[in-house]
Amino acid sequence: MVDDQPFVIPTLHARDGDRILLHGSQASRMLRHLESGGAVCITVTLIDGLVLARSVFHHSVNYRSAAIYGRGEPIPASEQYAALEVFMERCLPGRWAEARLPNEVEMKQTTVVAVPIESASAKVRSGPPKDDAEDMAWPIWAGVLPLSLQPGAPIPDTQAIAGVELPDYLGRRG
Amino acid sequence: MVDDQPFVIPTLHARDGDRILLHGSQASRMLRHLESGGAVCITVTLIDGLVLARSVFHHSVNYRSAAIYGRGEPIPASEQYAALEVFMERCLPGRWAEARLPNEVEMKQTTVVAVPIESASAKVRSGPPKDDAEDMAWPIWAGVLPLSLQPGAPIPDTQAIAGVELPDYLGRRG
Repeated sequence: MVDDQPFVIPTLHARDGDRILLHGSQASRMLRHLESGGAVCITVTLIDGLVLARSVFHHSVNYRSAAIYGRGEPIPASEQYAALEVFMERCLPGRWAEARLPNEVEMKQTTVVAVPIESASAKVRSGPPKDDAEDMAWPIWAGVLPLSLQPGAPIPDTQAIAGVELPDYLGRRG
Repeated sequence: MVDDQPFVIPTLHARDGDRILLHGSQASRMLRHLESGGAVCITVTLIDGLVLARSVFHHSVNYRSAAIYGRGEPIPASEQYAALEVFMERCLPGRWAEARLPNEVEMKQTTVVAVPIESASAKVRSGPPKDDAEDMAWPIWAGVLPLSLQPGAPIPDTQAIAGVELPDYLGRRG
């Protein structure tokens, strides 16, 4: 929020107990806003399907959405490394144990901030369309077209090392 | 935005030339904010994949994201019906021609507002991980796990009429 203009930034998040961790470049305006205690709404929405009713009015979307309200809180320098490990483990469990870990220069360029969850709301719609009784004989297809985020075939880096196999945790996702 | 607390509402949108249409219940706090000229940021993000690098630092996400900044503008009552048709055609092309159209009571419960696009920004990441030269021999799998929103098998409403076929426009989506 700058003046009365709200800003939205797409970003990864990780839940850590009763707080949400956000991370990024040390230069990020969003992270500096949060480090100084700025207010924020963090929201995640999953689309589950399109709901086709007989009437235009009852068309809808199946989805699950959460919004969390709070204020940013800096994480002390001495806890940044551990916070980054928690962040990575939530996003891609198992990767931290194998990857080349952050060095001092990289840690200086990276910031993790916490947002303690002060309040939250969730919205969910699921199930079939709910048409009015008098529309049930309207002669068009009605129902749900399910939608979900699906993994495709993994694309190895062009400079992949021969013999290195796909990690189990990619198969375990979702 | 209420006081200094920003609010995020998941919602459908439709582009109509140089403006974005949003719709919902006449009682929606978001729509009343916009009808009175309130500031808004409308954002859409598509996730394209997880980017696994050799180093923790270079892990990333492939995505396409747009954020539009503007202020709401009411749409006159005489133009609400046409705006709703545009909205529906953008979301589900072909459905308006077949579905039971909105009646007077439904139109009174529905509001469509416009947000002229004043400014916008887009962020995109695509392609493989970009590791540092000295990490290229690190012996773990590196590459991209593609992710995309995919349709599942359509679920006909339990009270579907026998012989009514799935509309072409469901197959044409995406």
